[in-house]
Amino acid sequence: MTASDRIPTLEDVLDAARRIAGHARRTPVLTSRSLDVLAGARLFFKCENLQRVGAFKFRGACNAVQSLDPITAAAGVVTQSSGNHGAAVALACRERGIPATVVVPRSAPAVKLAAIRAFGARIVPCEVAQADRNRVTAEVLAGQGGSLVHPYNDGRVIAGQGTATLELLDEVPDLDVLVTPVSGGGLLSGTCIAGHGVRPSLRIYGAEPAGAADAHDSLAAGERITGRAAETICDGLRAELGTLTFPVLREHLDDILCVDDVETVAAMRLLWERLKMIVEPSAAITLACVMKHPGLFANARIGLVLSGGNVDLDSLPWQLSAVPS
Amino acid sequence: MTASDRIPTLEDVLDAARRIAGHARRTPVLTSRSLDVLAGARLFFKCENLQRVGAFKFRGACNAVQSLDPITAAAGVVTQSSGNHGAAVALACRERGIPATVVVPRSAPAVKLAAIRAFGARIVPCEVAQADRNRVTAEVLAGQGGSLVHPYNDGRVIAGQGTATLELLDEVPDLDVLVTPVSGGGLLSGTCIAGHGVRPSLRIYGAEPAGAADAHDSLAAGERITGRAAETICDGLRAELGTLTFPVLREHLDDILCVDDVETVAAMRLLWERLKMIVEPSAAITLACVMKHPGLFANARIGLVLSGGNVDLDSLPWQLSAVPS
Repeated sequence: MTASDRIPTLEDVLDAARRIAGHARRTPVLTSRSLDVLAGARLFFKCENLQRVGAFKFRGACNAVQSLDPITAAAGVVTQSSGNHGAAVALACRERGIPATVVVPRSAPAVKLAAIRAFGARIVPCEVAQADRNRVTAEVLAGQGGSLVHPYNDGRVIAGQGTATLELLDEVPDLDVLVTPVSGGGLLSGTCIAGHGVRPSLRIYGAEPAGAADAHDSLAAGERITGRAAETICDGLRAELGTLTFPVLREHLDDILCVDDVETVAAMRLLWERLKMIVEPSAAITLACVMKHPGLFANARIGLVLSGGNVDLDSLPWQLSAVPS
Repeated sequence: MTASDRIPTLEDVLDAARRIAGHARRTPVLTSRSLDVLAGARLFFKCENLQRVGAFKFRGACNAVQSLDPITAAAGVVTQSSGNHGAAVALACRERGIPATVVVPRSAPAVKLAAIRAFGARIVPCEVAQADRNRVTAEVLAGQGGSLVHPYNDGRVIAGQGTATLELLDEVPDLDVLVTPVSGGGLLSGTCIAGHGVRPSLRIYGAEPAGAADAHDSLAAGERITGRAAETICDGLRAELGTLTFPVLREHLDDILCVDDVETVAAMRLLWERLKMIVEPSAAITLACVMKHPGLFANARIGLVLSGGNVDLDSLPWQLSAVPS
């Protein structure tokens, strides 16, 4: 088994931290007394919206790309993504000096395409359906060679995402709880492995949109639920769990908490107003889940990973909801 | 002469730093490679938008309030402000356990009144004209007693504002240039005293709206120009220089750079997009001035004080300009 197709260990996360040092940014941990009062807990926000490309995704992509041996690396990297992972792979490959190809569904916003292109990656369009994304990605790999770096179902990517938790616990060692968003489960799996590796007493929760609750339902059912439609404003949280991430979450998680988009948008606005941080809905969902469950978290010291800050400043969600329908 | 009516020294700023420790936040210094490329320089942003009450103003207010001897303090503090200084004094007094009274013009937005009230201060309304603000403030002081803490023409306030520069130079000692906004000159004076006190070779610039360029014109004329109307989107930069701040700026400044509001709004949007920081126009003007004068700053290491982040998220300036008139 290679590093890409096995579940990483704490050692792998520590290796990843060494590998991405000098490439990824050590992001600050911020606090807000007024948010603490509102939540009835002590909140420590790990600001991955300040990470390069504006999201934690650069950690995993960079670790995967830097893990390649020189000959394999020279053949380039292929991935599929409509969002931050594509930009992250593109930037990581540029820093390594190797070619990147990103398979992007035609629905992707122009601004994200521009970011991927700005980092020098080749873009191959595909249809929106997951089956077509997979088909085109396989065709690209067969045609030009190169290594696949999956957005989350890849041990190197999971280990890279876990480095955010290493830094958070280094800065605030006595946390009681960790909360991160869950989509495909790469960030949350890395959080589990790093978090319980360093501090076994931690309670760890996933935060998931009620309209895309496949991870919650998968854990409840004891098997991976796939093929559902996702309906949520959290554009980063529409993927489904992978074969590597599902077992990690089963082993480590206390629970997955769900909120609806109205609660997420309210939390997003609170973070903008009180923390002065531009975070996307997929990041703000962590605070929404904490505020919805005061009984679970009373007076706890909670680390929340603010996963990203890439939003369209011309259409903010509280403006959308203010438009009469 | 008391500490309030003399120009502070570096020692005063160092005393202020000790006095406000544990009250004010040590704010982070952030960087952005993409903004560096755009500006052709190395930019270090001191994030006072993350300061308590969302602005550097808390430093000066806290230093002034903590400077009072116990008997004087017990009589309470009076100030006049339509903005962040009022909230800063209110919070500083709450932490000291003494009463605060803030004279507020009737034009002040409800949200700022609410912030002042939330920190437990008494609000006394006045008319908008500066003469009426002064008259009502004098009446309040005559009627109830207490100490005046002026928003900028006060040595204790200037010393407090200078602590932001101490922290910035502690974190990035080898800066070539400092740029801060200038309104009444409290922040910029503190920046000059702390900056040149620690590092005499620094070049120091003020950033001022072209529509409220009284500081620029005062320095050019060699005398304080007062009584002008200010027209700018930078609601924190409409005051005029004080008798204490004008001589400090004359002695220390390299120049005051002016930009129009369109340039400031463009810089504000860049900071939101690239730095993921919510900053107000009065803070973004620093970046606008640097980008407008590439010849002055090529390859320099520049510290910019992002002075505050209190904006109305329901009416952002790039939306206003998009509305057909």
